[in-house]
Amino acid sequence: MTTTPPDVLRCAYAELVVTDLAASRAFYVDVLGLIPTYEDGERIHLRAVEEYLHHSLVLRQGDTPALAVLGYRVRGAADLDLAEAHYRALGVRVQRRPAGATRGIGEAVRVEDPLGFPVEFFHDAVHVERFTQRYDVHGAGALSRLDHFNLGTPDVPAARAYYEDLGFRVSEDIQDAEGTVYAAWMFRKPTVHDVALTGGDGPRLHHLAFATHERHQILHICDHLGALRRSGMIERGPGRHGVSNAFYLYVRDPDGHRIEIYTHDYYTGDPDNPVITWDVHDHQRRDWWGNPVVPSWYTDASPVLDLDGRVRPVVPRVQPREAEVTVGADGFSYTSPRNGFKLGEQV
Amino acid sequence: MTTTPPDVLRCAYAELVVTDLAASRAFYVDVLGLIPTYEDGERIHLRAVEEYLHHSLVLRQGDTPALAVLGYRVRGAADLDLAEAHYRALGVRVQRRPAGATRGIGEAVRVEDPLGFPVEFFHDAVHVERFTQRYDVHGAGALSRLDHFNLGTPDVPAARAYYEDLGFRVSEDIQDAEGTVYAAWMFRKPTVHDVALTGGDGPRLHHLAFATHERHQILHICDHLGALRRSGMIERGPGRHGVSNAFYLYVRDPDGHRIEIYTHDYYTGDPDNPVITWDVHDHQRRDWWGNPVVPSWYTDASPVLDLDGRVRPVVPRVQPREAEVTVGADGFSYTSPRNGFKLGEQV
Amino acid sequence: MTTTPPDVLRCAYAELVVTDLAASRAFYVDVLGLIPTYEDGERIHLRAVEEYLHHSLVLRQGDTPALAVLGYRVRGAADLDLAEAHYRALGVRVQRRPAGATRGIGEAVRVEDPLGFPVEFFHDAVHVERFTQRYDVHGAGALSRLDHFNLGTPDVPAARAYYEDLGFRVSEDIQDAEGTVYAAWMFRKPTVHDVALTGGDGPRLHHLAFATHERHQILHICDHLGALRRSGMIERGPGRHGVSNAFYLYVRDPDGHRIEIYTHDYYTGDPDNPVITWDVHDHQRRDWWGNPVVPSWYTDASPVLDLDGRVRPVVPRVQPREAEVTVGADGFSYTSPRNGFKLGEQV
Amino acid sequence: MTTTPPDVLRCAYAELVVTDLAASRAFYVDVLGLIPTYEDGERIHLRAVEEYLHHSLVLRQGDTPALAVLGYRVRGAADLDLAEAHYRALGVRVQRRPAGATRGIGEAVRVEDPLGFPVEFFHDAVHVERFTQRYDVHGAGALSRLDHFNLGTPDVPAARAYYEDLGFRVSEDIQDAEGTVYAAWMFRKPTVHDVALTGGDGPRLHHLAFATHERHQILHICDHLGALRRSGMIERGPGRHGVSNAFYLYVRDPDGHRIEIYTHDYYTGDPDNPVITWDVHDHQRRDWWGNPVVPSWYTDASPVLDLDGRVRPVVPRVQPREAEVTVGADGFSYTSPRNGFKLGEQV
Repeated sequence: MTTTPPDVLRCAYAELVVTDLAASRAFYVDVLGLIPTYEDGERIHLRAVEEYLHHSLVLRQGDTPALAVLGYRVRGAADLDLAEAHYRALGVRVQRRPAGATRGIGEAVRVEDPLGFPVEFFHDAVHVERFTQRYDVHGAGALSRLDHFNLGTPDVPAARAYYEDLGFRVSEDIQDAEGTVYAAWMFRKPTVHDVALTGGDGPRLHHLAFATHERHQILHICDHLGALRRSGMIERGPGRHGVSNAFYLYVRDPDGHRIEIYTHDYYTGDPDNPVITWDVHDHQRRDWWGNPVVPSWYTDASPVLDLDGRVRPVVPRVQPREAEVTVGADGFSYTSPRNGFKLGEQV
Repeated sequence: MTTTPPDVLRCAYAELVVTDLAASRAFYVDVLGLIPTYEDGERIHLRAVEEYLHHSLVLRQGDTPALAVLGYRVRGAADLDLAEAHYRALGVRVQRRPAGATRGIGEAVRVEDPLGFPVEFFHDAVHVERFTQRYDVHGAGALSRLDHFNLGTPDVPAARAYYEDLGFRVSEDIQDAEGTVYAAWMFRKPTVHDVALTGGDGPRLHHLAFATHERHQILHICDHLGALRRSGMIERGPGRHGVSNAFYLYVRDPDGHRIEIYTHDYYTGDPDNPVITWDVHDHQRRDWWGNPVVPSWYTDASPVLDLDGRVRPVVPRVQPREAEVTVGADGFSYTSPRNGFKLGEQV
Repeated sequence: MTTTPPDVLRCAYAELVVTDLAASRAFYVDVLGLIPTYEDGERIHLRAVEEYLHHSLVLRQGDTPALAVLGYRVRGAADLDLAEAHYRALGVRVQRRPAGATRGIGEAVRVEDPLGFPVEFFHDAVHVERFTQRYDVHGAGALSRLDHFNLGTPDVPAARAYYEDLGFRVSEDIQDAEGTVYAAWMFRKPTVHDVALTGGDGPRLHHLAFATHERHQILHICDHLGALRRSGMIERGPGRHGVSNAFYLYVRDPDGHRIEIYTHDYYTGDPDNPVITWDVHDHQRRDWWGNPVVPSWYTDASPVLDLDGRVRPVVPRVQPREAEVTVGADGFSYTSPRNGFKLGEQV
Repeated sequence: MTTTPPDVLRCAYAELVVTDLAASRAFYVDVLGLIPTYEDGERIHLRAVEEYLHHSLVLRQGDTPALAVLGYRVRGAADLDLAEAHYRALGVRVQRRPAGATRGIGEAVRVEDPLGFPVEFFHDAVHVERFTQRYDVHGAGALSRLDHFNLGTPDVPAARAYYEDLGFRVSEDIQDAEGTVYAAWMFRKPTVHDVALTGGDGPRLHHLAFATHERHQILHICDHLGALRRSGMIERGPGRHGVSNAFYLYVRDPDGHRIEIYTHDYYTGDPDNPVITWDVHDHQRRDWWGNPVVPSWYTDASPVLDLDGRVRPVVPRVQPREAEVTVGADGFSYTSPRNGFKLGEQV
């Protein structure tokens, strides 16, 4: 690249198309405790309790569940020009959007990125009250802030190179002895990631993740869904990741969009932060406790829209898939005579 | 029954035969943090941090992993005579044991109970230091006290009747619409249980359970096993039970004996404590979050010894087995279109 | 005593007179998360999330803040007659009350006990939904159940003897080398206490205590009061008690009634449960971390009513007061050169 | 400033002079759980469990307790030259130090900064094992990483300007209506602070802070000190800060050096992160729960050494002191009729 990429601060917001806004509100507001900044019959703008920008999640009523956009915040207004030039040089579709094109967001540059995702860069945004100390409205499962995006993409090394050109660095990845890369975790803010690249058919959104302060907040979300007799929304976890060391839970919203609740990752901000490479055959890589990864976690993901709002076609992964190579190594596999019960032989 | 049963206070200790005492010590002392009261080359006597009797668990070196005895504490010395008379009236084998026959335990009555388990009643026991406030030696996963025994037995209503004659009451059970009872939880001390009866081939010990104060202590045990690369010892959980509402983890010791770590159950001490009956087809009964019960949890259990130290033959369950009837209802089943991923169709 | 005392199960409910029912509701329902079973313009009946009797706390509108009654639940209906005979033999005032005299409570015996407290014994009570697993309505500071009463009384040994005659046992106490008893903890249910006797002017209610499962629930109540800018309602703590080992917080309701939130005590149900005697000069007895006990905690308490609803006169303590003898030993004192900052010399 | 300051990544390590290395080891290793990277009879190099540089704390045996140096890590080797030029332009004493002058640290620039503190800038450092997932050695109070330095300095606005020139930004501060600044929190890594400036006699080290993941880890440290009968080492807390929203504990090491244990602060990395200014008369600014700040916390601090190892003279604060102006507003004060018990009138 000869262009200077924009200075990305962090992942900042996502917009999801949902098919039943009231059902989604019951999930994101009543169960997850996100705070509505704005809502009308077509959209709900939500933020977590420590966020002061207008929103970190927009839910939009539509016919087909999909990811409409991923928003990255850049350091300053000048980065918008850099973003435009950068993506024009990449030869992809680029749009300038005026302030307010998305409520609460200033001028922005939207692109169909080389991986096929609809991505927006913005700096200006409306400030709203930060609810950090509004414990009077914190539920037992309060979410603190958006943490990361996880993207399904067929060619992880190519996606990694694209994000490295955008200034992201790798914290951890999963490979095999032949050098196949199954997934990579990349960051701008000094956490384990702002974006994870998960090898698979893509472009698809694997999940969005919100952070909590402690694990009991994540456990409460499970208890809460149990009380609502909606335990089927719990897809995987809670558990401890090997990669990132974070404590995690994956839930599926009413449209099947996957949300991770996440805590306990670590500081990565020094330039020599050690990169951790996990062997795809290490059965503790995805769950430190060796618990199985359910197949849907590998296979399901949300479609993404192009800049015209049409669902993007999906390109299949050509390289080996993690779920396939880990039969015999993953949680659904024999990892020792003792945990043979984990059913790997049946998948 | 025309005899007066002994006044049982609570489940008090168990003796397990283990095949590698050093390996068992590494698990029970180094990972679970139990405190050795006494140890020699043949035995280790252990207690949890809030216990002041000599031990709540004895590990004994032997050739075959098995449960050697379940100890119930009775209110006073006179209860030993009541116990002897009670079991003689039941027509089962009864032994008086002098003080010290088990180190740290006073005079006792041992029986082969009608369910086939080796059971001891005792009152006197050596007092040792209670480590409640010895936080200098509490690890991050400190266990507070023995909580309950869980027994595999073919005929749950028969076993329940036997324990009711011994003065136990039911807190919760699992049934189906036809009235088949799959499991029952029974208590003397005012918790959900001192003993659980799990329908299955028996007599076998399903598990022993120790209580902690908080969930983070249970989560640490998982993390610890992960760090030791022994995650295969984690069989099921952590999770929230439907029955009992307790937060749980099941681990398997080096011989496969199953230990539950358990917290958050509730007070049951009033005589009108409501009994909760769960439908065997309620997929949240075993895990409030709908997570699957691994098949080994239903099938595996420890053999038990008779009073001569010989392994007891196992009587198969004749009534329907929970794991069988819950294909289609259990975690390994479709409970809704959303949690179809839980693999029920493959079991 | 020659009478047979009633078989008390546990402390069961209290009725407090409050001067502004709406303000009290904001505290007990909105902050502490107690569940209203019934409310009208004069009274609110409340229970904690794991309770199935009609209430464990009644708030009644009145002119003067006071304790109206302490309710102990007895094992059966026959215990009411035993209670009546027991207190008639004690020569104190006794009333039979028909079912429903207090909403939700069956037939009862009320007495002015020898310590001067209005006490009710009852067995029958209306059952209501137990919210144990209603996590959809559990706030971040959910209270599980009423745990104990703490009573101010001038002569602790006399009060202890009275309660021992009623079948209570001592778990812990505070004494000095001269044998003066400053406080005693006594129980029927196998926790550290159903009632604590605190030496001081009496009869007065020192506090009521509710239990939570974990400490983070107690910490949330502090955060919540901070968010409401009502941190002045936090009187003492949070901290770890020496006595009982419980984690505690003392808050004051809008009328100054003191409520403790409490977790982590231990099992006391065996008849040889070791009694722990603390030296009044041990500065960790009241707070394991050596933090100071604020003077108001020693001096303030709620008046109690007689059976006609009049405030009982208070009898002063004659023996040394804990707050006085512990200047130089308590948290407001030098306990070592390092923690001299704890201001003992200034009190 | 016309020089380009070095690009500081974060606060990275401190060296303390202690008078009894064995006593200090018992505190920092046995109680706080820091991991020794290196130790001999003169020095112990320690790190927290998620740190991979050689150390974040050095304890050095000496005659007088003091801070020997504060280490900031810079982005690259070139920043050392920038640092040297920057401080030469400031007219203060500057030293180049070869790699290894401090074990584990590469080439460095040491200065006596304009505030009077001994400060080192370095980039290269030896990497050691990161114990993030070594749960087998994490104690119940595991510390994750060094979080910040807190410095006593007479003139906070001057100190703030100096640190702003070094590229730090303010997250929060405490002022009064007259504009007097009592304290300021400043950061490079996106947390609330790498350095806090506390108005008072200086240069003195107010404290060093280490972060944990959860609050129970902090509470365990209190319990642990109680078990050791060293509760006098607990100076203040645990509690919730108003400023930073962090959950905190202050302990004093055997020489009186103050260590904070700290968790739950928030992300500050966006350039428009809102600055929070607290009123010095807001009694929840230092403790969100309104608990008192003990006087020693305001008055005591560690002396600092110059580059020759001599204790620096202290310059008294001229502006009003927080402890003085908050008599009547602080925790030792009446903040409302209810919390009058907090003893402000007696100080």
